[in-house]
Amino acid sequence: MSATDDLIANNQRYAASFAGPASGLPTRRVAVVACMDARMNVYALLGLAEGEVHVIRNAGGLVTEDALRSLTISQHELGTTEVVLIHHTRCGMQTFTDGQFKTSVYAKTGRLPSWETGAFSNVDTDVRECIARVKDCEFLHRTESVRGFVYDVDTGALREVR
Amino acid sequence: MSATDDLIANNQRYAASFAGPASGLPTRRVAVVACMDARMNVYALLGLAEGEVHVIRNAGGLVTEDALRSLTISQHELGTTEVVLIHHTRCGMQTFTDGQFKTSVYAKTGRLPSWETGAFSNVDTDVRECIARVKDCEFLHRTESVRGFVYDVDTGALREVR
Repeated sequence: MSATDDLIANNQRYAASFAGPASGLPTRRVAVVACMDARMNVYALLGLAEGEVHVIRNAGGLVTEDALRSLTISQHELGTTEVVLIHHTRCGMQTFTDGQFKTSVYAKTGRLPSWETGAFSNVDTDVRECIARVKDCEFLHRTESVRGFVYDVDTGALREVR
Repeated sequence: MSATDDLIANNQRYAASFAGPASGLPTRRVAVVACMDARMNVYALLGLAEGEVHVIRNAGGLVTEDALRSLTISQHELGTTEVVLIHHTRCGMQTFTDGQFKTSVYAKTGRLPSWETGAFSNVDTDVRECIARVKDCEFLHRTESVRGFVYDVDTGALREVR
């Protein structure tokens, strides 16, 4: 049994007690952009049920062009109006530089990534830059509520970055 | 109170009964790439606890360059070895074409997105293309287990695409 097989078996239990279809239009009208970090169970830590918010996640919780694509679809096609950004303490993205990461990938694969890794040193600064990137995005028409947070992986608490 | 304020209040309850720090290295050694759809509570539908897997999400659950950036970091820096892709039934990405979406964004903002929307017509075909994109990625060194699924939003069950 691979780990993937275990997850499929877990899903059979979930489906057996499925509560029924939820809304495809997020009822809270919120889109969350969060880091992919395993410690963040986004639905649990925000107290959410199925159908309430969009969740976009990537390494770092960065506002990349792809995250902006997702947010644009979220707002224009599915009616979200608020954006919540979540970075976190002790993030892997703070443990290497762009150059160190690329050297390590090259050593194992013989290939050098063409994209920016997105490594950052100060989490608050990175959250503020991400807020600005959402607010400045020319394709988003709802930028009145764009707020950024740092999740503390040791306490489970969110701290707002102002 | 905005919806964001409600979520912050929910987080205070989560932190108050926080179980303690989880592992920053995903203990299942799995990275999941899923659609941002509000109906998919990824931790619940895969029966996961905090600390078990990386979760990457975007509009469509597509294997974009940014998803490959996240997967590369997940494998090289944080030791994941299996990839699970999750698309779903009744996806918003099947309800418009690239051209229709861009026209709609232009009508509201006066700006035309430069990026591809990622709209698709057949979900199974798109899952297969995403599996191939992960397997072909020259920066990933662990591609033995790359499996794709369609989540049924009406039943809660995963179906594997072969």
